[in-house]
Amino acid sequence: MTIRHNLPPLDWLRGYDKRLLTSDLLAAVIVTIMLIPQSLAYALLAGLPAEMGLYASILPLAAYAAFGTSRTLSVGPVAVVSLMTATAVGRIAETGSLGYASAAIAMAGLSGLMLIAMGLLRFGHLANLLSHPVVSGFITASGIIIALSQLRHILGIDAHGENLPTLLGSLFAHVGETNTITLITGVAALALLLWTRRGLGPLLQRLGMGKDTAGMVAKAGPVLAIVLTTLASVFFAFEDRGVALVGNVPQGLPAFGWPPMDLELWRELAVSALLISVIGFVESVSVGKTLAAKRRQRIDANQELIALGAANVASAGSGGFPVTGGFSRSVVNFDAGAQTQLASVFTALGIALAALFLTPVLYYLPKATLAATIIVAVTSLIDGKILGLAWRYSRSDFIAVAATIVTTLVAGVELGVLAGIGVSIALHLHKTSRPHIAIVGEVPGTEHFRNIERHDVVTYPSIISMRIDESLYFANAGYMESAIYALVAEADERLEHFILQCTAVNEIDLSALEALESVMERLKEQGIALHLSEVKGPVMDALECSDFLQHLTGQVFLSQHQACEALKPR
Amino acid sequence: MTIRHNLPPLDWLRGYDKRLLTSDLLAAVIVTIMLIPQSLAYALLAGLPAEMGLYASILPLAAYAAFGTSRTLSVGPVAVVSLMTATAVGRIAETGSLGYASAAIAMAGLSGLMLIAMGLLRFGHLANLLSHPVVSGFITASGIIIALSQLRHILGIDAHGENLPTLLGSLFAHVGETNTITLITGVAALALLLWTRRGLGPLLQRLGMGKDTAGMVAKAGPVLAIVLTTLASVFFAFEDRGVALVGNVPQGLPAFGWPPMDLELWRELAVSALLISVIGFVESVSVGKTLAAKRRQRIDANQELIALGAANVASAGSGGFPVTGGFSRSVVNFDAGAQTQLASVFTALGIALAALFLTPVLYYLPKATLAATIIVAVTSLIDGKILGLAWRYSRSDFIAVAATIVTTLVAGVELGVLAGIGVSIALHLHKTSRPHIAIVGEVPGTEHFRNIERHDVVTYPSIISMRIDESLYFANAGYMESAIYALVAEADERLEHFILQCTAVNEIDLSALEALESVMERLKEQGIALHLSEVKGPVMDALECSDFLQHLTGQVFLSQHQACEALKPR
Repeated sequence: MTIRHNLPPLDWLRGYDKRLLTSDLLAAVIVTIMLIPQSLAYALLAGLPAEMGLYASILPLAAYAAFGTSRTLSVGPVAVVSLMTATAVGRIAETGSLGYASAAIAMAGLSGLMLIAMGLLRFGHLANLLSHPVVSGFITASGIIIALSQLRHILGIDAHGENLPTLLGSLFAHVGETNTITLITGVAALALLLWTRRGLGPLLQRLGMGKDTAGMVAKAGPVLAIVLTTLASVFFAFEDRGVALVGNVPQGLPAFGWPPMDLELWRELAVSALLISVIGFVESVSVGKTLAAKRRQRIDANQELIALGAANVASAGSGGFPVTGGFSRSVVNFDAGAQTQLASVFTALGIALAALFLTPVLYYLPKATLAATIIVAVTSLIDGKILGLAWRYSRSDFIAVAATIVTTLVAGVELGVLAGIGVSIALHLHKTSRPHIAIVGEVPGTEHFRNIERHDVVTYPSIISMRIDESLYFANAGYMESAIYALVAEADERLEHFILQCTAVNEIDLSALEALESVMERLKEQGIALHLSEVKGPVMDALECSDFLQHLTGQVFLSQHQACEALKPR
Repeated sequence: MTIRHNLPPLDWLRGYDKRLLTSDLLAAVIVTIMLIPQSLAYALLAGLPAEMGLYASILPLAAYAAFGTSRTLSVGPVAVVSLMTATAVGRIAETGSLGYASAAIAMAGLSGLMLIAMGLLRFGHLANLLSHPVVSGFITASGIIIALSQLRHILGIDAHGENLPTLLGSLFAHVGETNTITLITGVAALALLLWTRRGLGPLLQRLGMGKDTAGMVAKAGPVLAIVLTTLASVFFAFEDRGVALVGNVPQGLPAFGWPPMDLELWRELAVSALLISVIGFVESVSVGKTLAAKRRQRIDANQELIALGAANVASAGSGGFPVTGGFSRSVVNFDAGAQTQLASVFTALGIALAALFLTPVLYYLPKATLAATIIVAVTSLIDGKILGLAWRYSRSDFIAVAATIVTTLVAGVELGVLAGIGVSIALHLHKTSRPHIAIVGEVPGTEHFRNIERHDVVTYPSIISMRIDESLYFANAGYMESAIYALVAEADERLEHFILQCTAVNEIDLSALEALESVMERLKEQGIALHLSEVKGPVMDALECSDFLQHLTGQVFLSQHQACEALKPR
């Protein structure tokens, strides 16, 4: 049972038949064609040699296939994680240097080990620290940075930066050095890619191709762009005209080896590796969940951590960089009919063949084409509506999203993630630290108690019934105490009973218990008894572990109605 | 009104009369006598020259008197803040160097500005991030470190360290160098101090002194220890026998001046200054609240921030170090009958007189005596019961307290505070991320719904009523989604209605709303309608800002009873 849980293929390999094989093989062919340009492009985005993109798309796919619980997730280099890798590694080594590549490999290894550790510790629910709107905001802002960072390849200039101000500054400073032929190539590639996205599918349909097939063929747009610009590059001798080309890509499969065992390097990478792990995991699980839901399958977050960890360790062991489950590649895999992770294994074989035989052709490929591929890919990441949606729904969601977007744009991806998590938690604490408090009275003729300000209810001068709409814990214990004192200070002098209605109290922690004890003492001095009503089972269990109930000046009532019946003046 | 709020003396100065003056003067005399040794001792603890302890007990008292809302709080150097100052400043400069003293002055200035800023931003409730048990644990652990750090003065050796392992290691390494006369002086001072605490009061009472007076006189124990050991030091020529003495203390009032305006220094001190500000504020407010409650007065947290800020700025401007409201000094002030902050103003005058005329006598005072004063003072900070109390009440409170104590002891005060805050928040998020979920049914003959596992209730196969005991927000949105899917997967196939009872739901954030929308879609595919019941006013207001209610597949019911009545099979 445990082995089956940790090796999901044992589930789906039984009953694997020719029909499934055909589906998986077809999907693999389509995904391979799509993945070759994407792998090269994301290596470029991460500032790494093109072959590392291919290496990161071979073994990691097989590793995920062995351990992952999603049957259709496609793992490999993705845009946001590649950008984060470039940011982190760029702090440590010069782009293009040997140290840079090996730091990226170490990053994959470290992030993989962290993911596996989190999986073994069953930290799967930690992904919940990143709220959906915050993730959308973060990915949107990252997409903008990525698109802008690729403009330099379209212009053929040397401009760098990790955030909007430095990027724009650098682009403006160098825009005069634009290489015209590079620009023409880049713009042409962009136009072609945008057209294959929108126009090619419908055109093929008009030419008599089936809708699904036409859609699939249109996904091969990047390959078309690569073929056409490579041909142009050869015929018009781009190399002699100052156009940046991919250049020599070593032919063959990746060599296996340990990532650099440099403790100081690992220590420097640690925080970034953690952030990359968390973001990669959140992105991957959200894709995995969406796809699984469509086929009524389920994925297991803890096992996913282990599988993504294994994929990253495999990437590090075979000269790759950090990988995760990607949205667009997984959707293509799913739509192409992949039924099991064997499709990914076949895809890995396809990419391996490309690494063996295709690399000499890549020499003439202009980098501008790859940059265009990236720009078109990330436009789908940008969610223009998230800010408006958050604004309309709640100010605090809006603040969290806006803080994430602004920090990511202005201070880069790492601080952006941290700001997103930090601001969300701070806002949550802030909200729960000043909970909604209602004075309630009985709705005549019922046993229901409602806010005296919203409803017409019955109250008595000798009783205050207060409902506090939050668990009582350290962040709001002081607020509750002050609120009760303020109420009692303004109350009728006939006041004898203060009833705390605990319908919404899911927890009372030790700080809150101490605050309640102070309240009870203070009310006692004024001759007022403190009662509790509608205390939930788990809260009551905890209170019984303290001596609070023994010296409670009032009683504990099962319902607010019973409390009022017992205490109201006769 | 605003001026009166910001200058509390305007309130109590009206109606100030001779009776109040007499009380305040008497209290000032007693507090001054107690404060002289305490000020010198805490300067020693902070690694600063003795006169800085006096300086920190003059102007800051007057500044707090002008702005503070507590009438009896006594501000000045306190143990925990002095230790934190030593830790932070010790990282930047060598103890005893000029740079060390000026960094401590800068720390007071920076911390003062931060406190004022927090007050103006009305951040008073931020103190709630530190739960009571965590603060107790932190102060207990700090007390242990302080007591151990003073052992070196009792032994007359050179041993340093910021945490338990380094302190113990250093003490063991140097214990062979113990100076016998220093040790005898220290132990004698300790014994005398402990006896004056326990035995002197009762003895004086037996000699016919009134109980209160005897208690007050006993508080002067440290003065007695100072006088006796200074005399011994003079008569037995301690100076020639290698006993560390206080030495030259400049005579006169502090010079006014700006703290060092070194931006780099301020940047280095920033994090520590923030932690000192927070801890000082929390300690001071908790003392202030306790005393205010005894006389039915109230204190205002935001105004307290400003007053403590002003006190620290005043300290920095007059050659002092970080100060805050201290527990023991405030209690003495209160018990001695202080009625208003004029008592503190008189105390400041008393300390100023000491700085003017008393310092030559301090030359011969052994440092061991001051160390003994500190050790006896901090034993009252140590709360031996907090761990047991937390353990009995709840595991999560225990983990927070234990993490705070262990981190403070092992890694020092700053990481200790951060661990306390971090672990409390993490545990809170963890708890609320897996909320208690109950399937409920109607208690026969009532309109109440209770957990089907705890009560004998009525249910229908076509309805699931689920009560989730937590606000729905990003940390538990995914958990709720999975829980609902699991319930539906196991449900009777006649299931038609899923009712989410929202009694305990105080908020639904955007993440949770998106999760609810996914749930609704998924249930719809299975022919099950999603209903809400007992949605609170504020939550309903928020939902109405989205389009969730428009495409809700079920209805929203005012009560769970009405929901069941409407949906149950007829």
